[in-house]
Amino acid sequence: MRTTQQFFVAGTGIALPGRPVSNGTVADLLGLAGDWIERSVGTRSRHFCWDPATGNLTHSLADLCAEAGSAALDAAGLAGGGLDFLVLSTATPDTLLPTTATVVADRLGLRDLPAYQLQAGSSGPVQALDVAGALLAGGLRAGLVIGGDVTDRFLDVSRPAALLSPEELYASALLGDAAGAAAVTARPEGAALTVHTRLHRFMGLGRAPGLIIDWSGSVRTEPGRRMLYEDHDAVREHVPGLAAGLLDDLLAGTGWRREDIAYVLPPELSGRMTARISDRLGLDRSRELSGVTEHGNTGNAAALLQLHRLAAESTAGERALALTVEPGKWVVGGLALERTAGAPTAAAP
Amino acid sequence: MRTTQQFFVAGTGIALPGRPVSNGTVADLLGLAGDWIERSVGTRSRHFCWDPATGNLTHSLADLCAEAGSAALDAAGLAGGGLDFLVLSTATPDTLLPTTATVVADRLGLRDLPAYQLQAGSSGPVQALDVAGALLAGGLRAGLVIGGDVTDRFLDVSRPAALLSPEELYASALLGDAAGAAAVTARPEGAALTVHTRLHRFMGLGRAPGLIIDWSGSVRTEPGRRMLYEDHDAVREHVPGLAAGLLDDLLAGTGWRREDIAYVLPPELSGRMTARISDRLGLDRSRELSGVTEHGNTGNAAALLQLHRLAAESTAGERALALTVEPGKWVVGGLALERTAGAPTAAAP
Repeated sequence: MRTTQQFFVAGTGIALPGRPVSNGTVADLLGLAGDWIERSVGTRSRHFCWDPATGNLTHSLADLCAEAGSAALDAAGLAGGGLDFLVLSTATPDTLLPTTATVVADRLGLRDLPAYQLQAGSSGPVQALDVAGALLAGGLRAGLVIGGDVTDRFLDVSRPAALLSPEELYASALLGDAAGAAAVTARPEGAALTVHTRLHRFMGLGRAPGLIIDWSGSVRTEPGRRMLYEDHDAVREHVPGLAAGLLDDLLAGTGWRREDIAYVLPPELSGRMTARISDRLGLDRSRELSGVTEHGNTGNAAALLQLHRLAAESTAGERALALTVEPGKWVVGGLALERTAGAPTAAAP
Repeated sequence: MRTTQQFFVAGTGIALPGRPVSNGTVADLLGLAGDWIERSVGTRSRHFCWDPATGNLTHSLADLCAEAGSAALDAAGLAGGGLDFLVLSTATPDTLLPTTATVVADRLGLRDLPAYQLQAGSSGPVQALDVAGALLAGGLRAGLVIGGDVTDRFLDVSRPAALLSPEELYASALLGDAAGAAAVTARPEGAALTVHTRLHRFMGLGRAPGLIIDWSGSVRTEPGRRMLYEDHDAVREHVPGLAAGLLDDLLAGTGWRREDIAYVLPPELSGRMTARISDRLGLDRSRELSGVTEHGNTGNAAALLQLHRLAAESTAGERALALTVEPGKWVVGGLALERTAGAPTAAAP
């Protein structure tokens, strides 16, 4: 479904834990050759919610989400009391219950409002903005959308590379921890961005998952169960085409032409995949707003980190398309955005 | 937020795996005294997605959700191609990615539609119906709401009671596996129930969680980490009052009087808690629609199992209030419902 009721992004915020962790540090931890990560994944650095020197946890997902959410409210000039709802998306909640959305609501001092949590991959921010748009269209005035993911349950730096599964090894080079947030409003006054169109679609009918992330509870996991699985060939084969189809659908939905688009916010699976996708889209790469080489694949944070940069770097009237493709079970999510005239500029990261 | 845009439940469906498992069977597995469960929890039987004789898994959450969803579509006379969206709520997804919502979309033959998954406790079905109502108000015509939970990651029948934590022991007596579904429409033709009002609120500001359900990934869980935690005293203290406040808010929102309510669908935490809540509500228990003693606390299925019974047992014009209270971080969810005149009756379970 393509939805065209407009709403507005009044402020954005991000949270990147600690200092950037270099490929050299990750390669040393895993006992890998120094340049393997940049060559095969295309990432140069990332942030982790744990200390690479000790393995100790430094931030929870709730920490990152509360920090990003608070920054977005500040940028929007909104107090928590002015919010009508919270929508948080993640693939890696701190606990199954309580939801991280409710823990973050508590941290932000919110009361008596709905706090939704969407389980999703990288299309999560678009899904969350889609739910937010529906709630705003239904009469609510302002809400907070947050997305984030953390890696600490899946990356174990205490084990040498030889003991990691191929998926764990690849994930260690691919993923980064982050959260992003957007304060959204039904009215345009003071807003930074207009969300013209949003599109969220399950495209996986009859198609095996490209990515599986499993979990276990207090019952011991049976030996040999694969907790991470990725079908790299399927990802390489399907993601660029899904992104291209999504771009076409957004252009058709808005009536915008390719030459009207000042910025493309591409899927951030890896530096190399983003390059493949851009080739397929046939767009000038100078129009690309992507931080995947600097902070890796940040899952549910990625599109919101891009939105934050868009709010900071664009000028009034410039148009942008955000594209997300989630290989879990092949979900696409897209946004058609426009920089609002005379809006306050979000603080640069 | 209280939302009053009406929408309609056109059909309901449920899935309860295998045969009912008696207290005697559970007590034998755990080495408990025979009548402890009925006395302390108030449950008489439940269904499990695993075989109590062998411990082997028989159903996934996706199995239960697809079965319930398919039954709801049949009851509504809707084909999958007529659906504009799917919203699934659960605390216990089969995997973190892909989402169970997308796996169920595939099973039901759905294509190119948004499939949302909400992470929630027992308020999940109200949250999912709330999102569905917003999407229908925004112009979509029909959708499918599914809720379900499964226990197999947390209940290990191969361990004797002495090796279980108090929480695992209590959960073994309390929980059951199930899914429920409701096909929802923007137009009333042929619908069974009108959803007049829905209410979803985070009430946990400054209050510690009453229930924690944790998870782990491929990184080994540190010894001693509590994967299940429940603050029974806080649950007993807070849940009845939260339910009473929710009832009052729903009455205030609809303008209905207590004597107008033909059925109350109470929170189904346990047989004993449901009795405590009913006492606090001061309502005639003959108006209560609850299956908690027969199938235990089924989490995200419970309110939809109740809705299924309401569709089957009520007569035109009868009004009902559904109340859910989630002790995770103190979330309430409620619905004001009315049986539609001349609607088809859902098949009895």
